[in-house]
Amino acid sequence: MKGNVIVGQSGGPTAVINSSLAGVIKAARVNGIEKIYGMHHGIEGFLKEDLIDIGEYITEDSDLALLKRTPSAFLGSCRYKLPQIEGNEDVYDKMFDIMEKYDIQYFFYIGGNDSMDTIKMLSDYALLKGKTQRFVGVPKTIDNDLPITDHTPGYGSAAKYIATSMKEIIRDNESFGASKPTICVVEIMGRHAGWLTAASALCRGEDCSGPDMIYLPEVAFDMDDFLARVKHLAETKSSVVIAVSEGIALADGTFVCELGGGSDAVDAFGHKTLSGCANVLTQKIAEVTGCKTRAIELSTLQRCATHVASRADIDEAYNCGYYAFKAAKNDETGVMVVMRIRDREVYTVSYETFDIHEIANVEKKIPREWIINNGTDIGQQYIKYASPLILGALTPYYSRGIPKHLTLANKKVK
Amino acid sequence: MKGNVIVGQSGGPTAVINSSLAGVIKAARVNGIEKIYGMHHGIEGFLKEDLIDIGEYITEDSDLALLKRTPSAFLGSCRYKLPQIEGNEDVYDKMFDIMEKYDIQYFFYIGGNDSMDTIKMLSDYALLKGKTQRFVGVPKTIDNDLPITDHTPGYGSAAKYIATSMKEIIRDNESFGASKPTICVVEIMGRHAGWLTAASALCRGEDCSGPDMIYLPEVAFDMDDFLARVKHLAETKSSVVIAVSEGIALADGTFVCELGGGSDAVDAFGHKTLSGCANVLTQKIAEVTGCKTRAIELSTLQRCATHVASRADIDEAYNCGYYAFKAAKNDETGVMVVMRIRDREVYTVSYETFDIHEIANVEKKIPREWIINNGTDIGQQYIKYASPLILGALTPYYSRGIPKHLTLANKKVK
Repeated sequence: MKGNVIVGQSGGPTAVINSSLAGVIKAARVNGIEKIYGMHHGIEGFLKEDLIDIGEYITEDSDLALLKRTPSAFLGSCRYKLPQIEGNEDVYDKMFDIMEKYDIQYFFYIGGNDSMDTIKMLSDYALLKGKTQRFVGVPKTIDNDLPITDHTPGYGSAAKYIATSMKEIIRDNESFGASKPTICVVEIMGRHAGWLTAASALCRGEDCSGPDMIYLPEVAFDMDDFLARVKHLAETKSSVVIAVSEGIALADGTFVCELGGGSDAVDAFGHKTLSGCANVLTQKIAEVTGCKTRAIELSTLQRCATHVASRADIDEAYNCGYYAFKAAKNDETGVMVVMRIRDREVYTVSYETFDIHEIANVEKKIPREWIINNGTDIGQQYIKYASPLILGALTPYYSRGIPKHLTLANKKVK
Repeated sequence: MKGNVIVGQSGGPTAVINSSLAGVIKAARVNGIEKIYGMHHGIEGFLKEDLIDIGEYITEDSDLALLKRTPSAFLGSCRYKLPQIEGNEDVYDKMFDIMEKYDIQYFFYIGGNDSMDTIKMLSDYALLKGKTQRFVGVPKTIDNDLPITDHTPGYGSAAKYIATSMKEIIRDNESFGASKPTICVVEIMGRHAGWLTAASALCRGEDCSGPDMIYLPEVAFDMDDFLARVKHLAETKSSVVIAVSEGIALADGTFVCELGGGSDAVDAFGHKTLSGCANVLTQKIAEVTGCKTRAIELSTLQRCATHVASRADIDEAYNCGYYAFKAAKNDETGVMVVMRIRDREVYTVSYETFDIHEIANVEKKIPREWIINNGTDIGQQYIKYASPLILGALTPYYSRGIPKHLTLANKKVK
């Protein structure tokens, strides 16, 4: 095939974002692409012409196998929003100049809803100026908040990590409680969408009753009702574990984490930093119940615990990357790869593309009717939806007792 | 053999405390013991005659295999210190009455240095009163702070979890940093001993440079020196990750976590709750460097992440339990099982016993000469010491994508 490939990774990393990269690389190789470039730190690096010749790092299929077992963005990531086209044509002209200089015909960007804006802007500009390059987005986010696609690569592994850790935390919490229960509040990522927090329910089964309550940001948080419910649990149970989303907010929009004097920090996409609501809640719980409390933030491990990644997720991430190349080869542009579930019981996925304009900057939340028990739990529709996404494992390559990774720093071919 | 067995679990759980329980049970069965009782919530439950007939829950070897894969204390744990003998003979007489009622001849307690006090008191009282029961301690603590034994069951798995998570966190942190580094401070358990925090160094290798600095509680913490070093790292690196022990303290004894207005809470053994130093440090780092910061507490997952437990640790925990029974059968009492490393390269362990009076309530810290670079790192002696302890894995029994556990609630034989 004529023309070269460039691929970038953007936004918060996931446990499987490198599997999507592996899929793009494999498809390009199979189709005889000469050069595959990587953007070093996404579009921010691309603008500085900071490109990586992937052929210097990844030569064998065994490299791809190790890449699939490596968390976080192998190429480096960024949070960078392209400016509007009008009045900033020079920025766009520069990017197309770089593409022409390196004979780049196929442009892939692996990212979430903010990052898909980059695909939208570049494909719009190409259309405007009659450029022939193809721009295809590859979905990625642990938050699972991209529209159109059934779910996003990265979510299944984060969900598996959360369900596994939640079960282990519940087990730990149950070990005490002979006289009074310990009350544990586990804070889970996901911003304004409750998908990750809902995953804590996946640990329910014959050997685990799961979290006692689950609070998602889709429902306004009522502090008095919450404390009354916790008080009742403390009086009737020997162990209490509650899952809360970092993004829960009162009816007036105040985030619970802000009640503890949280920071006003925002990221490059203008999003507020949400963290600390478990600490706020455990302080109040201790006052009301007199019980020992514990606040646990699952933190970044939710997006990088590849050692316990979902095999289903790794395979789907890889396939999304591979399919993105096929779509570009078929002259598609201004689209993102989406997954459709043909059958959720005999689990069957198909890969398609969808107009990027319907996807960029749109946030998909949990359907309100899936949230049950007055906003304190998640129902069976969610369990049915998410169960196939956490199945299977890909054994890490252990060396000296811990998983081995592929990195730019250690893999450069001489 | 004549007489029954009782076994209890005490103190903070670990990923492998149930493997030690499995070892005691297997040894008792092999030796034809009729009844094996468990203390429900340790000595606290025993005092209330809250006993579990283990034969009603665990019948097959496959139950023991699942028990080994189950985190936290299967029997329930407690933090309970027996009163001094003088003036409290009624408490002790009651305990021996219970033993006689259930024909208990062999008493095993799986715990750390506080819990070994229970073995000491009971064996002392038996000696005093001419009782024939045998009391043997089985070592357990993620903190690795028990004396005499080379290391403690529970430590290897916690160390493996910490090294694995630290490597994944470093990978995640490296993905950004195109312009300015993110500075991440990871808070690790261990109270006044730095063994767990030192384990963060085990992720160093050809694919990972490890934490940039490691701060242990064995050395007084100098805030000005720390901030100057972080400032220098922030100016020269694109990613900075620092490991700190929860128990680091200034030269005057003030815990760093207290500088943030931490709580004065103490546990049942009278130990202060140490938590929050990473938050204190990241706030100061943000002021000094202007960089984005992140505080991560690895929290209770350090002691319950059986899904990534060390095989070496699981096997040693099991052997310690098994050997405890053999010792009691050989008429030993008032002792704890200890591990001696015959060869650290061709890794060879032997199991022995040691006088409980030299062990109970004693805390073993990291040798000062192992701590290098002005108290900011750990040297090769530690790596040589700890490397064999994290080797190997025991695959979880996965069901619906997450590890299966054995619990009292779901396993009761009808």
